[in-house]
Amino acid sequence: MNVIVDLCVVPLGVGTSVSREVAECQKVLKSYGLSHEMHAYGTNIEGDWDTVFNAIKTCHERIHAMGAPRISTTIKLGTRTDRVQTMAEKIASVEQKLAQDD
Amino acid sequence: MNVIVDLCVVPLGVGTSVSREVAECQKVLKSYGLSHEMHAYGTNIEGDWDTVFNAIKTCHERIHAMGAPRISTTIKLGTRTDRVQTMAEKIASVEQKLAQDD
Amino acid sequence: MNVIVDLCVVPLGVGTSVSREVAECQKVLKSYGLSHEMHAYGTNIEGDWDTVFNAIKTCHERIHAMGAPRISTTIKLGTRTDRVQTMAEKIASVEQKLAQDD
Amino acid sequence: MNVIVDLCVVPLGVGTSVSREVAECQKVLKSYGLSHEMHAYGTNIEGDWDTVFNAIKTCHERIHAMGAPRISTTIKLGTRTDRVQTMAEKIASVEQKLAQDD
Repeated sequence: MNVIVDLCVVPLGVGTSVSREVAECQKVLKSYGLSHEMHAYGTNIEGDWDTVFNAIKTCHERIHAMGAPRISTTIKLGTRTDRVQTMAEKIASVEQKLAQDD
Repeated sequence: MNVIVDLCVVPLGVGTSVSREVAECQKVLKSYGLSHEMHAYGTNIEGDWDTVFNAIKTCHERIHAMGAPRISTTIKLGTRTDRVQTMAEKIASVEQKLAQDD
Repeated sequence: MNVIVDLCVVPLGVGTSVSREVAECQKVLKSYGLSHEMHAYGTNIEGDWDTVFNAIKTCHERIHAMGAPRISTTIKLGTRTDRVQTMAEKIASVEQKLAQDD
Repeated sequence: MNVIVDLCVVPLGVGTSVSREVAECQKVLKSYGLSHEMHAYGTNIEGDWDTVFNAIKTCHERIHAMGAPRISTTIKLGTRTDRVQTMAEKIASVEQKLAQDD
């Protein structure tokens, strides 16, 4: 089962800056070979369900190991059985509608 | 690694009522022996990371099998290494603060 | 426009315990006269759109005033035009399906 | 109060494709003059709190008017009082950490 995920990891107890922990997550996602794209409030990921969730678990383990005693994460995830759809196709589908209206 | 999760599963392409699919999820969580509590906009779950995420995967598989071609799910999840904390303790901790101020 | 909301406020830069800030939010919601119910990973709120979002803004202002330099909040919100549905009715609808299957 | 938001609007009761409704939201955000950037699972927005939430309310009104009887939206929102930070600066801060490690 393929999944498209939006992942936002918020470490607590490490002060106000969380970019070091977010950077570590990017490295984890890369090490799993997952297609991913960071934005200003999270990271889009696409791939096989088990690989994606193993990677997210590793992110939590790695950030705790870096010293964060608590993590609060928000995930949006989409699956569909009617057709295969990539992250790029989701964006293209909206942009096409916008172009038609111009 | 223990995790506290808030799970909100939204099936698309099945009309406006989603209670049948949400009820199915409750049964899946029960079948995994997971402590869970439904509220008006999701379900709180606590347990071992792998068990919780296997259950969530089964929810998606089951709801697709019921006929929903697309699912958009939102998950909040918390882990901590400083101490063990149950869902009941999280609520009690806030209620204690409220009582002190009365 | 009526709205049902699930609100989860996470203050950063105040250590690992966030119950003092969450308790403050409960007081804000009460002061706005909003029907609300805390659970283990957030608080369900129902009411008029503008009142609910004014209350959430006040929560942010109040928590910053308490000393939190940064807040990351997650909100789920539902509106519907086909019928009026309360938080209690959402839960009852799922429980009815579960009872039918027993 | 400035806010950075991640907005994900999911209309129900309109079938499996939601790109028409998401495109409408993009137009609403543009009409409010808000800086925004779509990604594969939502749209980042930054601006004044009241303007941003008025725009989100208009998105709901507009999508209901297009025929969707129910909408389930997920919002992440961040505010900070320690310093001003744009969406671009959030991303740059993580990318800088990644570059340092190379």
